Amino acid sequence: MTTYTAPTNDMAFILHELLEIEKQEIPGYSDMTPDFTSAILEEAGKLNSEILHPLNTVGDTEGCRLENGVVYTPKGFKEAFNQIRSGGWPGIDCSPKYGGQGIPAVVAMQTSEMFASSNQALAMYHGLTHGAQSAIIAHGTDAQKETYLPKMISCEWTGTMNLTEPHCGTDLGLMRTKADPANDGTYKISGQKIFISAGDHDLADNIIHLVLAKIPNGPKGIKGVSLFIVPKYLINSDGTLGARNGLSVGSIEEKMGIHGNSTCVMNYDGATAYLLGEEHKGMRAMFTMMNEARLGVGLQGLGQAEVAYQNAVSYAKDRLQGRNITGAVYPKKTADPLIVHPDIKRNLLSQKSFIEGARAFTSWSAMLFDKYEREHDHDADGIVSLLTPVVKGFLTDIGYDMTIQAQQIYGGHGYIEEHGMSQFTRDARIAMIYEGTNAIQALDLVGRKLGKDNGKHALSFFEIITNFIKENKDHSELNEAFLDKLKVGSKDLQAASMYFMQNGIKNPYDALAGSYDFMHMMGHVCLGLMWSKMAKISLLKLEKNCSNSEFYETKIKTGKFYMERWMPMTSLHLNRIQSGSETIMSMTAENF
Amino acid sequence: MTTYTAPTNDMAFILHELLEIEKQEIPGYSDMTPDFTSAILEEAGKLNSEILHPLNTVGDTEGCRLENGVVYTPKGFKEAFNQIRSGGWPGIDCSPKYGGQGIPAVVAMQTSEMFASSNQALAMYHGLTHGAQSAIIAHGTDAQKETYLPKMISCEWTGTMNLTEPHCGTDLGLMRTKADPANDGTYKISGQKIFISAGDHDLADNIIHLVLAKIPNGPKGIKGVSLFIVPKYLINSDGTLGARNGLSVGSIEEKMGIHGNSTCVMNYDGATAYLLGEEHKGMRAMFTMMNEARLGVGLQGLGQAEVAYQNAVSYAKDRLQGRNITGAVYPKKTADPLIVHPDIKRNLLSQKSFIEGARAFTSWSAMLFDKYEREHDHDADGIVSLLTPVVKGFLTDIGYDMTIQAQQIYGGHGYIEEHGMSQFTRDARIAMIYEGTNAIQALDLVGRKLGKDNGKHALSFFEIITNFIKENKDHSELNEAFLDKLKVGSKDLQAASMYFMQNGIKNPYDALAGSYDFMHMMGHVCLGLMWSKMAKISLLKLEKNCSNSEFYETKIKTGKFYMERWMPMTSLHLNRIQSGSETIMSMTAENF
Repeated sequence: MTTYTAPTNDMAFILHELLEIEKQEIPGYSDMTPDFTSAILEEAGKLNSEILHPLNTVGDTEGCRLENGVVYTPKGFKEAFNQIRSGGWPGIDCSPKYGGQGIPAVVAMQTSEMFASSNQALAMYHGLTHGAQSAIIAHGTDAQKETYLPKMISCEWTGTMNLTEPHCGTDLGLMRTKADPANDGTYKISGQKIFISAGDHDLADNIIHLVLAKIPNGPKGIKGVSLFIVPKYLINSDGTLGARNGLSVGSIEEKMGIHGNSTCVMNYDGATAYLLGEEHKGMRAMFTMMNEARLGVGLQGLGQAEVAYQNAVSYAKDRLQGRNITGAVYPKKTADPLIVHPDIKRNLLSQKSFIEGARAFTSWSAMLFDKYEREHDHDADGIVSLLTPVVKGFLTDIGYDMTIQAQQIYGGHGYIEEHGMSQFTRDARIAMIYEGTNAIQALDLVGRKLGKDNGKHALSFFEIITNFIKENKDHSELNEAFLDKLKVGSKDLQAASMYFMQNGIKNPYDALAGSYDFMHMMGHVCLGLMWSKMAKISLLKLEKNCSNSEFYETKIKTGKFYMERWMPMTSLHLNRIQSGSETIMSMTAENF
Repeated sequence: MTTYTAPTNDMAFILHELLEIEKQEIPGYSDMTPDFTSAILEEAGKLNSEILHPLNTVGDTEGCRLENGVVYTPKGFKEAFNQIRSGGWPGIDCSPKYGGQGIPAVVAMQTSEMFASSNQALAMYHGLTHGAQSAIIAHGTDAQKETYLPKMISCEWTGTMNLTEPHCGTDLGLMRTKADPANDGTYKISGQKIFISAGDHDLADNIIHLVLAKIPNGPKGIKGVSLFIVPKYLINSDGTLGARNGLSVGSIEEKMGIHGNSTCVMNYDGATAYLLGEEHKGMRAMFTMMNEARLGVGLQGLGQAEVAYQNAVSYAKDRLQGRNITGAVYPKKTADPLIVHPDIKRNLLSQKSFIEGARAFTSWSAMLFDKYEREHDHDADGIVSLLTPVVKGFLTDIGYDMTIQAQQIYGGHGYIEEHGMSQFTRDARIAMIYEGTNAIQALDLVGRKLGKDNGKHALSFFEIITNFIKENKDHSELNEAFLDKLKVGSKDLQAASMYFMQNGIKNPYDALAGSYDFMHMMGHVCLGLMWSKMAKISLLKLEKNCSNSEFYETKIKTGKFYMERWMPMTSLHLNRIQSGSETIMSMTAENF
C-alpha cells in the first residue's frame, strides 16, 4: 500500500519565503499570513492523506462501470466527494459572489497539488468543474451565472469539457457536432464527443456539459465553432431539476490509468443547449477553460511525481540490499538499506530536485495569474501565458519520467500492481496527452507565445533572469553553484530564440522542428531560476543562524544537484535545435 | 488493433551488408548466404505477424489464471506455442547434438527480435527455456545433458530461472532457500522464490526449474549459493515422467504488463533437486544464463520499440489532423495526415534512428558472441561482456521511452487500451527491471567490466572506433555528418573513463554516482559507431548507382538524424559525470 503526506513545510516555504505572498500588494494577499495558510494546508493535507489517498488503489482496481445508461464510480468515491464538497475545497479560489471562498490561486494551487497527488482520478471530478465554472464566469450572461455558478462552485453539480470527436482532437476545425437554432433562442445539439472525463457519474445531481459545436451555415473550420452549456437535466425556472436532456453515455473507455474517472463517449441527440458567449467564438471561450486546465494538468505531473517519490524514498530506506561500497553503514543489519547507494541517491535527488523546483514554478505561475486576475496586470498575464505551455508540457513529461524512476527504485516490486507504483506511472501518463498533447504545447509556445506582442513577454521573462543574476552577482557561493549555471542555461535559451527568429521566418520548419526541445529547455531555465532564488533565500537564512538549518542546507544541496545534473540539458537542446529541419524534412512519408 | 511486419529488409542489410556474415571466417558462417537467411527471416516473419502478434492483445486482456494449483495461459497460446515448437524456433541456435539447428546467434538474434516484437509475453516461455538449456550445456554432466537438453531444445519441456526471494533480488547473498543433501546425491530444496516468469503453465509437459539455494554450512553470503535442477515432474530412468515434485505455485502476480506470461510465486517444500555444476559455485553457473538473458532482454527493448514504431507510423500516415505550415500537402483531403508535421517527423525519426542503430548493435554483439562460442576468441568475449550491460540497460531504457513516444503519436487514442499502444509501453517497462535493474547494469559496466583485465577490453573497444574513423577520414561526406560527431562522442566517453580512473580509486562514489550516465553515454557511442558504419556502406552503394537507392538514401538520412539529435547526449552525460559525487553523497537518508 502506498501512502501520501502533504508536503506542507515545503509549500509554506514557497508561499512565505520564496514568494512572500503576505507582503505582496496583490488584492487579497495581505490576509494570507503563515497562520492562515497553514490552517488551510493542514486541513487539506489531512483530507488528502487520510481519506482520498487510501481510495486511490480502490479507484484503480475497481474502475467505473456503466449499467443501463448510468455510470457508477468506485466504492467510497461518493463519500469522499461529499467530504471534498463539505470542506468547500472545489470553490476555494472561486468568486465569493457565487459561494466561493475567494482565496488567491497561489494558495489554492497548493491544495490542488495535494488532490493531484493523492487521487488524481477522483480530483478530476471537481477539477473539471472548476474549469467549466471559469468559462461561465468569463463568458456567461448574468442569468447563466446565477443558474449555474453556485451549484457548480459547491459541486452540487459538476462540469465537463466536450471537445474531441472520433476523427478530431487537435484539429477541432474538422468537428461535426451540430447545434441547430431552435425558435426560443436555444439550440439542439447532435453529435458524438469522445474522451469526456467525468462525462457521467453518480457523484452529483446534475452535470453541466460545455460542448463545442457548429451552428449550420457559419464560417468554415475552427472559426465556425461555438460553445454551449448542455445540462444533463434541464433546469426549471425555479432552479429545480427538470426533464432529462437528450444526451447519453455511449460507453466508458478502457484506459491505461485514471480508472477511477469515467471517460465517456457522449452522444448528443437533439439535446437542448444554451449558447455560452458569442456565436462562432467558441474557441475563445474554450481557451479560458483550457489555459486554466493546462496549468492544472501541469500540476498533475508534479503531483504524481511527488507521491511516487515519497513512496520510493520510504522503500529505499526500508529495503535492505547490498552494502555501501566503502564499508557497511549498518553492520548489524543483514545488509544496508538501498538509500546508502550513490546511484539510488542520484535517482532520488533527480526526483526531489525536479519536484521542489516544479512546485516553486507552478506557485510562481499562480501568483502571476493572481496579478492578472486581481489587479489586471497585463504584463503578468503575458508572462503566465508564455509559461502555461511550459508548465503543461515540461512538468508532465518530466513528472511522468520521475514516476518511472520512482517505480524503478522498487525493482521487480515496482512492476507488481500490489505495491501501487505502477498506478502512479499509468495515471501520470495521461497528463502528457490531454488538454493538448505536449507536442501541441510546444507549438503553442514557439509558434504563438514566444513572438506574441512582438516578443515583449519573452523579453520580460529574460529580463527577470538577467536582473536576478545581476542583483546577486556579489554573492560568491550563490554565483558559483547557481548563477553561473543559470546564466549558461539562459544564454542557451536566448540563442535558441535567436535561431528561431533568424531562421524561422525564412523556414518555419526550422522553428517547428525545434519546438519540443525549446519547451524543455525553457522548463529547465524556469526551474533553474526557481532554484537560484530558493538557494539565495536559504543561504541568507543560514547566514543568520536560523534554527531549522537542516531544512535550508537540504534545499541548497537539492538545488545544487539540479544545477549540476539537470541544467546542462539546455546545451543538448540548443544543439538539437540548431541542427535545424533539413534532415527531418528530407524524410518523405514513404521513407518511414 | 495493432499489426506487426517483420523488418526483414533491414535485417538482411545488417547481416549481409553491415556484418557481411557469409564472408566471415567464423565456423558455420559461410553457410549463411542471403538466400538461406532470407528463407529463415521470411518464415519467422510470417509466424510472428500472422500467428503470434494477433494473440498479443488476447494475452494482455485475458492474462494467466491459477485454478486449483494449475496455471492456464490465455486462449490461443497453446496452439501458437505448438507452432513455435514445430517450426523448430526454440532450438534454432542450439547444439545439433541435442536436436538444435546450430544456426549462428547473429541470425537467431533476428528471429528473437521478431518474437520480442510480436508477443513478448508468449516469447518468454521459450526464451527462458533457452537460457536454462545454456546453463545445462555449460555446467551439466553428460547424463544431465542427455536427460534435459533434447526435450528443452524442442520445448517439449520448458525452463525457468529462480533467483529472487521476497526479501532479496539484487543482493542474492541474503537468500534463505535451502538445499539439504539427501543420501543419494540429490538435495531437498525448501523455500520461496518470487517473480518466476513462466513458473507454471499449460504449454509443456514438464518444467525444468533452475533454482539457486544454499547448502547448509557452506560459505556465507553469495559465495555459499549453489544452482540446482528441479523438475516439476521427476524423470524416470527411461526418460518418462514420474511423480510430481515437491513444489507448487503460490500465486500469480498481478503485473503492469506481460500479462500473457505467468509470473509465479514458487513454493519449494522439500523438492528433489540435482546439483548443476559445483557446490557453492551457483552464481558462476547462473551468470551463464544471466548474460544470455541480458542480451535477450536488451532485445526486448528494441523489439517493443519496433512494433510500437510501426503502428505509430501507420497512424501518422492515416490520421488527418491540421495542415502543413507552408500550405496543404493534400488540399483535397479535409486535413493533412499527421506525418507532414515537423514535430511528428522528429518524433518518428527518433524512434527509427534508435531502432535501426540498436538492431545493428545487437547483431554486432551477437557476432562477437559467435566468435567466442565458435572459435574461442577471448578478445571477442571480452568486448561482448563489456557490451552486455549496455545492450541490456541502454536499449531497454531508450526502447521503453520510444514506446512512450510512439504512444504519444496517437494522442488520446494512445491512452485507450483498445488501440494497443498502451500495452507496448506496459510490456516494455519490465525490461528495465528484470535480469538486474538497469542501475545494476550500470554498476556492472563501471564497477567490473570497464576495468576488467586491466581495461584491455575497453581499450579494444575504443580502438575499434578510432581505427574506423582513421580508415575513413578521406570520405568528406561521411566525415562531416558522421565521423566528426562520432569522434566527439568517443572522446567524451574516453574522458569519462579517465575521470573514473583518476577519481574512482580515491573516491569510489565518484564512479558509482556517474555509472548510470556512463552506461547511456556508451550506448550512444555504440549506436553512433553502428550508424557511421551503415552510412559508409550506404554511401558506397549510392556511389555505385545501385538499383534500390531509396533504401540507402533513407539510411543516410536516418543516421544523420541520430548523429544530430542523439549523439550530443554524450556531452550532457560527461558533464553530469564530471560533477562528481559530492552533492549526491552530502545527502543523508533523513534529507530525503
